[in-house]
Parts: sequence; C-alpha cells; structure tokens
Amino acid sequence: MKNQGQSLFFNSQPQITSTANIVGPFEGIGQLTGYFDYIMKDSLEGHTSWEKCESYMLEWSIRKAIDKASYQLSDIDFVMAGDLLNQLTSTHFAVRNLNIPFLGLYGACSTLVEGMLLASALIDGRFASNMIAAVSSHHDTAERQYRFPTEQGVQRPPISQWTVTGAGALLISANNSNSSKPKVVAGTVGKIVDMGIKDTNAMGPAMAPAAADTLIAHFSNLNIQPRYYDMIYTGDLGKVGKLLLIELLKESGYNLSTNYEDCGCMIYTNDQDTHSGASGCASSAVVFSGYIYQQLMQKNLRRVLLVGTGSLHSPTSYQQKESIPSIAHAVAIEA
Amino acid sequence: MKNQGQSLFFNSQPQITSTANIVGPFEGIGQLTGYFDYIMKDSLEGHTSWEKCESYMLEWSIRKAIDKASYQLSDIDFVMAGDLLNQLTSTHFAVRNLNIPFLGLYGACSTLVEGMLLASALIDGRFASNMIAAVSSHHDTAERQYRFPTEQGVQRPPISQWTVTGAGALLISANNSNSSKPKVVAGTVGKIVDMGIKDTNAMGPAMAPAAADTLIAHFSNLNIQPRYYDMIYTGDLGKVGKLLLIELLKESGYNLSTNYEDCGCMIYTNDQDTHSGASGCASSAVVFSGYIYQQLMQKNLRRVLLVGTGSLHSPTSYQQKESIPSIAHAVAIEA
Repeated sequence: MKNQGQSLFFNSQPQITSTANIVGPFEGIGQLTGYFDYIMKDSLEGHTSWEKCESYMLEWSIRKAIDKASYQLSDIDFVMAGDLLNQLTSTHFAVRNLNIPFLGLYGACSTLVEGMLLASALIDGRFASNMIAAVSSHHDTAERQYRFPTEQGVQRPPISQWTVTGAGALLISANNSNSSKPKVVAGTVGKIVDMGIKDTNAMGPAMAPAAADTLIAHFSNLNIQPRYYDMIYTGDLGKVGKLLLIELLKESGYNLSTNYEDCGCMIYTNDQDTHSGASGCASSAVVFSGYIYQQLMQKNLRRVLLVGTGSLHSPTSYQQKESIPSIAHAVAIEA
Repeated sequence: MKNQGQSLFFNSQPQITSTANIVGPFEGIGQLTGYFDYIMKDSLEGHTSWEKCESYMLEWSIRKAIDKASYQLSDIDFVMAGDLLNQLTSTHFAVRNLNIPFLGLYGACSTLVEGMLLASALIDGRFASNMIAAVSSHHDTAERQYRFPTEQGVQRPPISQWTVTGAGALLISANNSNSSKPKVVAGTVGKIVDMGIKDTNAMGPAMAPAAADTLIAHFSNLNIQPRYYDMIYTGDLGKVGKLLLIELLKESGYNLSTNYEDCGCMIYTNDQDTHSGASGCASSAVVFSGYIYQQLMQKNLRRVLLVGTGSLHSPTSYQQKESIPSIAHAVAIEA
C-alpha cells in the first residue's frame, strides 16, 4: 500500500513541470514583487464584476502554466480547481472556456494542496500524465460574500487577515527522470478540527489546531522531525495563527521555530496595514507558484512541506451560531 | 496507462461494500418506498435548522454505511463528500464528528459520481483500502439558497424540479475476490458544457448536453454501444432533460431509448406534483444506494452506468446574467 495512516506516498514522484500566477495591484507592491507573472492594474482588469475578474485570473493562470511548459490545452488530462465563492463560481466560468475534463474541489484555502495531492495520486496511479491544480481568490468577492459590502468600509479588527487577490496554477506531470523539476513525494490528508472558535475574524487561530493535527500526523506517519524539511510553509494562518501553531507543536514535542513560515506573512509589507497578514486560496498559491517554486528550481530549498489551511465555515453556519471547522492538508516537494 | 481520453479504468475493480440512505417524508411516500434505510418524520427531525438537519442526514448515512459493513469509523481511510450548500456547510459539520481524513468535493448534483471516481482511483492506486463517497441535499435549504424563501410560496413553473431531501453514502473498498459485491470498473470525467441556457428553472435542459458529451466520450473511449449496459441512469435531468438527452444521443448515432432512465424520474409519483421530477445531489444518491444497488446485489442488473449530472451556476452568476455551465461524470459498475 502507498499510504500510512492518513499520509500518502507518491512512489513515482510526479513532477511540477511549471507554475503560473497573477495578482492584484495591492499584492504586486508587497514583499514578493518580482515573483509574479502578471500584476493587474486594478481589481477588475476590464471586467464588469469582481467575480468575473476572479474567473479571468484563474483561467489566465491555468493557460499561462500550460504555455510555460510549451504544452497545449489538449495535452492536459484533467483540471482540479476550486475557489472560495459559493458554488465555485470563479472556477466553473474559468474552466468552461478550456475544454478540459474537470473535477471540482472545495477545501476553502486548503484547496490548492488538496488538488496537488489528488493530482499526484491520479498521476502516480497512472490515470493521468498531465494535470492542472489551480485556485483563485479575490479580496472584493470574498469580502462581500463572507463579511460586509466593501462599500460600507467596516473597520477591521487587528486579528483579521486580508484576502489575497490572485490565482495560481501548477502543471503536475508524470516524472520525467531526465528533468530537474521539483517532485511531489508524499502528502497528508487532514481531518476536520474544530476547537470552538466562533469569531470569523479569527481564522488563523481557528485553523492553527487543524494545521497542528495534520503536521503531527505527517511527522508521525513518515517518522521524521520538522528539521527533515528545509522549510515548512503554512497557507494562511497569519501572524497570530503562526505563533499559535509553533506553540501547539512545541507542546507535542516538535520544534518549528527555525524552519517555518506562513505564506500569509510573506505577501504584504507591514506598511500595507493588512493586520494579521494574508488569507485566501491564493495566499499559498501565489507564494508557492512564485517564490517557493523558484527556490526549489534553484535548489536553494531542496525539501519543502506546504500545508494548505482551510477555514470551512459558511456565512449560514456563522449566522446559526456554529463554530469554525478547519482542515489542513500537507504536501511534500523535493528538488 | 489506466486512462483513455477522459475515461479511467479501475483494473483492480474496487467493490461497493455497502450503501446507506436516508430521506425526508415526501420522498418516503414516493415510488421507491421500501428502498430507503430511514424515512424522517419531518424536514427537521428535531434539529433547529434545515441546514443542521441536512448535516445530520449526511452523517447518519455515512455511519450507517460503515455499520452495515460491520466496520468501525477508524477502518475508513478517507471520506470524500459534498453537498449543494455554500461552502459545503452540511458536509463539513457532518464530517467534523467522524474523525476521518476528509477531501471536499463540489460538482453540484454530479458530486456523488465524482466521489465514486476519485475514491475508486485512490483505491486502485493503492492509496486507500476503504473510502466513503457521500452526498446530501435538502429541499428547504436548496430552495432558500438558490431560489426564494420557501415561506413565500412562489409558484413553480412546469419545467422545474424538486430538490430531494436525503443523503446517500457508499463504502468503496479494495476488491475482495471472494465477495459478490458490485465492482467499480471504469468511469469518465466530464467537461464543462454550457449551451447558453439562462433559466435556472430549466436545469434538466441545461445539463442534458453535458450528459450527452460525457456519454459520447464514454462510449467512444471504451469502444462500446449503450446496449453494453443493462441500464444507464442519469442523476437528475428530470422528465424534460431525459427526453432531450435521448434526442441528443440519437443525433450522434447512439440509441438510449431502451435501457435508460433518469433517477430524477424515479423518486416521486405523478400525484406528488413535482413537475419535471427530482433534482439535487441526493437524487442519484438515494436511488443508487437503494434501488440500483439492490438490483446489482440481486444480479437483476449486471452492468450499470451511473451518470451524475451537475448544474454549476450560482445565484451570483445568475444575477450577473450568466448562463448555466453544466457537467456530467459517469461511473460503470458491474455485478
């Protein structure tokens, strides 16, 4: 068997052949300028709604990842994608234009890693040769769906995070042993963890216990310590959630203090006043497809664990006084 | 390779070890009385909201499928599940109570078949031994999310369908060659098809071209004719969509007139006045997990093709004047 507990082993080591990303102007002037394929001039980029712009970003990133590998759309066996919007609105209208068989995923901000795990499993199981895993988020579509109309200008509490406007796509392929592309070697599927937090501004603290649960399972199933990886990245715990995760792992005997960062803390500068950092499907997607992928290609990093973190509440569940169920999936990439 | 075009072949033939379902009282007095594990006394079953009741149904069906196989929750490697609600509300609160690693799917009413395909691929790829594929829908949660407050009593047009209140779960396992359980042998992943229909009451006609596209790909990839199957079932095209599908396949040279039925036409009696029939994730789920599974177990049917059909619009995309993108996935089961 190619699983141990909740972890999976991709023996054939599917490769990440190419990546692409696109971001909004606010992301473009942040810490990672230079690691994006395209920075939009505004939050609409000529579209008539934020949702249509988000859909455009996702389609753009998928096409760009395929272009970069000098592949055609018809070379892709299946697309796995998702976003934060109700009924995956951005995704469906993006994929409608591609004529590629499609499997829709929802894991909130953990969706990219969910897609990477399932795409790698289908490739390792010899069901596909080339797959796309892609996600998008948009600050303005997320704000009005999850919180308040942006026009209302509601003051944000210090613990809140800023949804990234952006999209990222990865082209994952069967291993070509001649290539020096980063390889997907293993992963861990998360369980839903809910510690009873009901404040939907506190998504980082709500998700940190899920990230801890998955990391502990990953280290235990693979019988490794955090130091096995050059770097461990979580998706969007933000400044508060990141500190909580380090604390939670310390309590379980794992030291994350030297080789761990959160993608949500890497996108904006302190001057940009996003409070606790970035969130959204695109948080891990634009950081991984840009900065981290480049570090892997240049062999500055050789072993990376990417942990997608998802807050699984809905406005309806919040209105019905429910707490925030969370999940985290992990994927190990080696250069 | 274990794929041909957009079709997958599960060479090890994972088995459907057990199934379970639960429905509302309106479904319970329909055509399939006797094929349900539990019929609720009302649409709340003691819960404080329809959403919480839907979540209860999904959890109940998953636990029941595991119970029927005399398994424990801890025997299940992964759950794949989804529903129609924003952010998969029913699913996340159901799975929160199970402590099983989870992968969330969204394919609207095609989600059960999407889950069957991915679960079978993970099992065939030796990433799992036992998986759950499960979905739910609830008439009252769907109505108020997609259409009007039910209290408003808006008149429904004749082409509209009635969302099934129910949930269904399948326990899919690695093939035990000693068992006589139905086997998942192949499947076809659909593309998104959108013929420009904008009337969200006409979901059957919107989805029929997607079902046709997937069926034609399936027959072509497998080099078979529709008569290869004892029966072909679509998920929820309803009376109008069913006739359209037969017509569309006839134009492509395939005869569906003798061995094809739509699950959406099998649940309610004509007296129940649901207009064009049933819809919802639970339409295919309760019919497959009840009636069809029993026919397979009794060898009354030996080869079945189940085609999950999903209408991928959202209220937001409808408000933004978009048409209805649709998808269909097919899975072949043999007894």
